Amino acid sequence: MNEHPVTRLDPRRARTRAALISAAQTFLAEDRTAVPILEITEKAGVGLGSFYNHFDSKEALFEAAVEEIIENHGDLMDRVTEGIEDPAEVFARAFRLTGRLHRELAGASQILLRRGSEMILSDRGLGPRALRDIKAAQVAGRFTITDPELALVAAGGAILALGALLHREPNRDAASAADALTTDLLCMFGMDVVEAQEICSRPLPALDELLA
Amino acid sequence: MNEHPVTRLDPRRARTRAALISAAQTFLAEDRTAVPILEITEKAGVGLGSFYNHFDSKEALFEAAVEEIIENHGDLMDRVTEGIEDPAEVFARAFRLTGRLHRELAGASQILLRRGSEMILSDRGLGPRALRDIKAAQVAGRFTITDPELALVAAGGAILALGALLHREPNRDAASAADALTTDLLCMFGMDVVEAQEICSRPLPALDELLA
Repeated sequence: MNEHPVTRLDPRRARTRAALISAAQTFLAEDRTAVPILEITEKAGVGLGSFYNHFDSKEALFEAAVEEIIENHGDLMDRVTEGIEDPAEVFARAFRLTGRLHRELAGASQILLRRGSEMILSDRGLGPRALRDIKAAQVAGRFTITDPELALVAAGGAILALGALLHREPNRDAASAADALTTDLLCMFGMDVVEAQEICSRPLPALDELLA
Repeated sequence: MNEHPVTRLDPRRARTRAALISAAQTFLAEDRTAVPILEITEKAGVGLGSFYNHFDSKEALFEAAVEEIIENHGDLMDRVTEGIEDPAEVFARAFRLTGRLHRELAGASQILLRRGSEMILSDRGLGPRALRDIKAAQVAGRFTITDPELALVAAGGAILALGALLHREPNRDAASAADALTTDLLCMFGMDVVEAQEICSRPLPALDELLA
């Protein structure tokens, strides 16, 4: 354990930790991990001494900052797919929204892109959820794939790389790109193109309300 | 320009540069970019002073080391697809071999995985070649895609992420995984599954000879 546990009863302590993580995310988004700890604490508006009450090292802080983004994304995916019974639609909705989030949460997206495709195989975030949905869709006969891990890698790699394209092309419409890519992935998993298009044109929950 | 031009007439100078780049690739594969320059020159078997005859900074060396891997991969893809007329087969062969290279050149693969999906949109390596083939296959009616950049992102993200899976699962057969993934990508691009499987079961040039 490099990270000190959060004492839930102390809101000021929790605020300091949150400020440090938020500052770390800003530097991560700018790819400035060589920044001195003093600059991080100044950005967070906390004293240098308080850093070590929360983290043993800069690396531990950056790790926690990335983990928080992955966890938040996983939680969001659970919320937006709650109650949907068709695993193919759960998969599709999560990917359609994740594609949009590259634009809506560009800083967080950049951080995850730097983390790279290894993240797809992490036990947190979208990866394990997508694998669960792919397997369930396979069992239900919705996807005709033979190797769920390979399907996950294809889908996860594609949705990550979509972020690189969206950051490269600021005028590209993220929603239509995400829906087109998800449609293609459903087809790759053996779904009929007409049904895939229909699933990927269903209404989505409003992102701005979800992120508020 | 952070990098000094190579003087082609001086073989000793070229050897020193090659040794530095090779040492840098070793540290990159171990994700040890914080290593002191002295340790890099020791590993390369060259004097510390000679470092600055070739590179202005450690970052410039690491950049050149990554670029060399990307360039070599692009050159290899040109060689192995020379003379193939069907752009769909050119695409398929490059992806089938790239999947295998994650295993055969594991160190180089790890380095590129750390570089992340932004590399897919680079103007060197597999990315621009795959985009060229995707567009040609679209024009020839071999692929029924509508957005070549989106197709590139899906394919490039998937083949990168395959590397993460292969490194995670050392016993997974890289050849069959690469062929299965490439078959899926051809299907995603609108090709009939029987034809996609046939294209992805054609004989390939021997990798060990190509890499010798």
